[in-house]
Amino acid sequence: MKIALAQLNFIVGDFNGNRSLILHHVQRAKAGGADLVIFSELAICGYPPLDLLESGFFVDSCIRSISQLAKELPADTGVVIGGPEYNEKAEGKLLYNSAYFLLNGKIEQSFRKSLLPTYDIFDEYRYFEPNREFSILEYKGKKIAVTICEDLWDDQPVENRFSRERLYTRHPLEELMKSGPDFVINIAASPFAASRMGIKQHIFTNKAKKHQVPVFMVNQVGANTELIFEGGSLIASPNGTVYQQLSLFNEDLFIADLDDVKRSTPGTAEISYDRIALMNDGLALGVRDYFQKSGFTKATLGMSGGIDSAVTLAIATQALGSENLHILMMPSQYSSDHSVADSEQMAKTLGVRYDILSIRELFDLYREVLKPVFGNRPEDVSEENIQSRIRATLLMALSNKHGHILLNTSNKSETAVGYGTLYGDMAGGLSVLGDVYKVDVYALAKYINRHQEIIPENIITKPPSAELRPGQKDADSLPGYDVLDAILELYIEKRYSAEQIAEEGFDRKLTEQVIRMVNTSEYKRYQTPPILRISSKAFGVGRRIPIVGRY
Amino acid sequence: MKIALAQLNFIVGDFNGNRSLILHHVQRAKAGGADLVIFSELAICGYPPLDLLESGFFVDSCIRSISQLAKELPADTGVVIGGPEYNEKAEGKLLYNSAYFLLNGKIEQSFRKSLLPTYDIFDEYRYFEPNREFSILEYKGKKIAVTICEDLWDDQPVENRFSRERLYTRHPLEELMKSGPDFVINIAASPFAASRMGIKQHIFTNKAKKHQVPVFMVNQVGANTELIFEGGSLIASPNGTVYQQLSLFNEDLFIADLDDVKRSTPGTAEISYDRIALMNDGLALGVRDYFQKSGFTKATLGMSGGIDSAVTLAIATQALGSENLHILMMPSQYSSDHSVADSEQMAKTLGVRYDILSIRELFDLYREVLKPVFGNRPEDVSEENIQSRIRATLLMALSNKHGHILLNTSNKSETAVGYGTLYGDMAGGLSVLGDVYKVDVYALAKYINRHQEIIPENIITKPPSAELRPGQKDADSLPGYDVLDAILELYIEKRYSAEQIAEEGFDRKLTEQVIRMVNTSEYKRYQTPPILRISSKAFGVGRRIPIVGRY
Repeated sequence: MKIALAQLNFIVGDFNGNRSLILHHVQRAKAGGADLVIFSELAICGYPPLDLLESGFFVDSCIRSISQLAKELPADTGVVIGGPEYNEKAEGKLLYNSAYFLLNGKIEQSFRKSLLPTYDIFDEYRYFEPNREFSILEYKGKKIAVTICEDLWDDQPVENRFSRERLYTRHPLEELMKSGPDFVINIAASPFAASRMGIKQHIFTNKAKKHQVPVFMVNQVGANTELIFEGGSLIASPNGTVYQQLSLFNEDLFIADLDDVKRSTPGTAEISYDRIALMNDGLALGVRDYFQKSGFTKATLGMSGGIDSAVTLAIATQALGSENLHILMMPSQYSSDHSVADSEQMAKTLGVRYDILSIRELFDLYREVLKPVFGNRPEDVSEENIQSRIRATLLMALSNKHGHILLNTSNKSETAVGYGTLYGDMAGGLSVLGDVYKVDVYALAKYINRHQEIIPENIITKPPSAELRPGQKDADSLPGYDVLDAILELYIEKRYSAEQIAEEGFDRKLTEQVIRMVNTSEYKRYQTPPILRISSKAFGVGRRIPIVGRY
Repeated sequence: MKIALAQLNFIVGDFNGNRSLILHHVQRAKAGGADLVIFSELAICGYPPLDLLESGFFVDSCIRSISQLAKELPADTGVVIGGPEYNEKAEGKLLYNSAYFLLNGKIEQSFRKSLLPTYDIFDEYRYFEPNREFSILEYKGKKIAVTICEDLWDDQPVENRFSRERLYTRHPLEELMKSGPDFVINIAASPFAASRMGIKQHIFTNKAKKHQVPVFMVNQVGANTELIFEGGSLIASPNGTVYQQLSLFNEDLFIADLDDVKRSTPGTAEISYDRIALMNDGLALGVRDYFQKSGFTKATLGMSGGIDSAVTLAIATQALGSENLHILMMPSQYSSDHSVADSEQMAKTLGVRYDILSIRELFDLYREVLKPVFGNRPEDVSEENIQSRIRATLLMALSNKHGHILLNTSNKSETAVGYGTLYGDMAGGLSVLGDVYKVDVYALAKYINRHQEIIPENIITKPPSAELRPGQKDADSLPGYDVLDAILELYIEKRYSAEQIAEEGFDRKLTEQVIRMVNTSEYKRYQTPPILRISSKAFGVGRRIPIVGRY
């Protein structure tokens, strides 16, 4: 039996587009001799549909689209594809998250997801009833266990100190193995996290080895708002190695012969990854899809002369092409000369259009206008924020006038501690680096410069500064980024307490100060743009902390 | 047996504060002769703790606080109180959402929540394992069924066309009734929705009547960020009437004699409410608690001369006192004279400090500075947005300099259709009216003026306008608010499709246009401030729609 893995990039709710893409790949697979073609989880509508699943007309469109697809398929070619299914029972959630098996014009069978991830960015129990009954697909003399994403994640390594490896009391594959399937299908929509690629591989190779059965996993590729899906669909051999991995960050189609996979010649035991290269490629895909899927082509951003805007610009150029960027440099009386010079150099290297708009007069006029309410109060963070908000207003004006989306350039470290201005440098349609710690922003800069100096060396080597008052440096108000980032990661990703962080060797007082900065800036992060997620715990929909509280 | 219902206002994570409040009310109840004192769901930490439940140190603090409370209780007084509990089994979610029974220094027993609401603003399966084993509390010769909030909502009326009355396959009270309890306790954290007060009452009176058993429901009161809890704790008699309802929007303690309740003298069959009065009081509580619980006292807002800012100012004055408000009027060349005059009149009536800052020169200077990027392009929405963003920058400057929180004044109708400027009039720390449709904003204005003219009549009667270009009126780009709001409610709250809305008698083309405006402005709402929730479906955490997609 020849099995095709079709790893595609879907647009949520684009039923006609998604169905065409699916059909096209069924035809390609059939031309390659495939008996069975596998698509990803909820492929018919694209993942994640979120609360669109609470609208009858959306779910009906999904089901109509599945039926139509079945009719349009070439004869004698089986298709496994994800889509929502109504729960016909009188009680429980209205839907199942299902894998449909289509053959010769008909929906032959469906298989329902048992384990519904409801943590981090996942809210599946919001929509779906868990499956409790197991059946096997029989096709062309083979017995096939059809599972959906989390169904194979009943035993998963966790990074968070307080999480659990066994989140579920059911074990779908154990149930299905009782029927002695020839192979396992897993249709997935498993989002990207740079640090979890190895964990993902092992989920599938471990299951294959444990049950001595091949596993064919098809993941979605592409980005939908903040979530990036890396693809990397995978065939695990019964000996626990990787028979084949599909492309990362690109659509792909691969046809495998079941007997070859079963023969279990030693495959790759351990795929190795360059974490920073993954981040770069993932972020570029995230930016590209945000624009393409929204029907936009052009971006703007404010280039400060610092490393964050430089890396954002480099990634945006990879994603959109330099011809689609129009950036602004907006110096004030506090800007150093090199800030504009470095920025110009980079824009010229990349061939990106730029304008230099001084904010000096606007800043002076604001202070003039504000005299009745400022009185004789000394300068403070208020004046710094005004500068930042002038810049956002100028960038948004360009964006509104010319149809550019403003890219936000904040990194995860400053977003974490609230070192940013709401409606100022925190503005934008999409945050490119909001899930990248500052130390990784530097690593990305080096990666971007691996072949040629795209980011001027001076931007990488000078001490970071917001340049909102004379001589200001980040180091005046923040610890070194190596220390800060390590504390933040223990607190945010790993959920350590201050005490537990101090036990790792960090200064207790500093740790408490950092945690306090994180906790008191929740109100700012509530209003940040969507942040492209590249870690196991990004700010945004996957992290829900009360704004009001004492903690 | 005398049973006390203690309806209190907790701060999330304030363990010492919450425990003192609880102890104080146990002592009051004991002084009143109570044998048993009941507190609300997750009272020990305050509801909703959200992802704080994913931190070990937070959960440990909850459990320590419960133990300490048990030790501090007066002798011979039973307490039922909500808190998280560890799941000792090796598999499943790490926690239960439990009701602890405390007596004579010890945690005697715990009862776990079976039905975990995971819809709208609720994400309980994110944290908790559902209970599947039922036991009864025996105390002073009585058998007591202890349930937690949703446990009694296994059969609930729904507003959304696509939702389900029976979301669960388990029915906790049916299980518990097998043991023949003398009465039922329900500890709750059930948030306010102005239109669902009747539904809430019937949940409890229906269960009481069906099983011929008294129900004692204790709800949390107070607001935590966007969620308002109205209190309104309730004793339902076995005859299906309301024996007693506790205060709305205030803390309350009530002691009932079980025999009196059982005697079932006819109580109130149907509590009636003034929906607009409820909204007013709920919003005032929402504002008050947002400030008090964050340690802030002072607010600012921009007063445009329109009805939204007028109603927001009136509610803020109720919540915070006029002495804690400092507002700005910020006329431009397009502002009508009466806008400032009406605003001044209202500020004077209320005794609120105000300043008038013209944005004219700033607006001119922005256009000057932007010439290199604007070129000769005609004026459009870009110039309108600049005015709005200048105002936000001035308001935030006042806020930053003096420690005021900026209140957002957008209503639900304009938030829905994207009729607002990001980082402009959409800015603020808290949105007061973001869940109030424009027609209800008018109704609130009339309610506010019921005793005296607080809001100048001219503000209520003049046609709404953003005054961002000469002669602009809302009616130029939007349908009448009565029609718009009706369409929006069918689409947002009730999940009708365009077709279904048209079947209700609305123009199909207009309906599609409105839906399109809602769908294409998701990206703006992603960045709005927290919105005080007063409906069954508010923008914010309870509504999760993809930004990128075709729908």
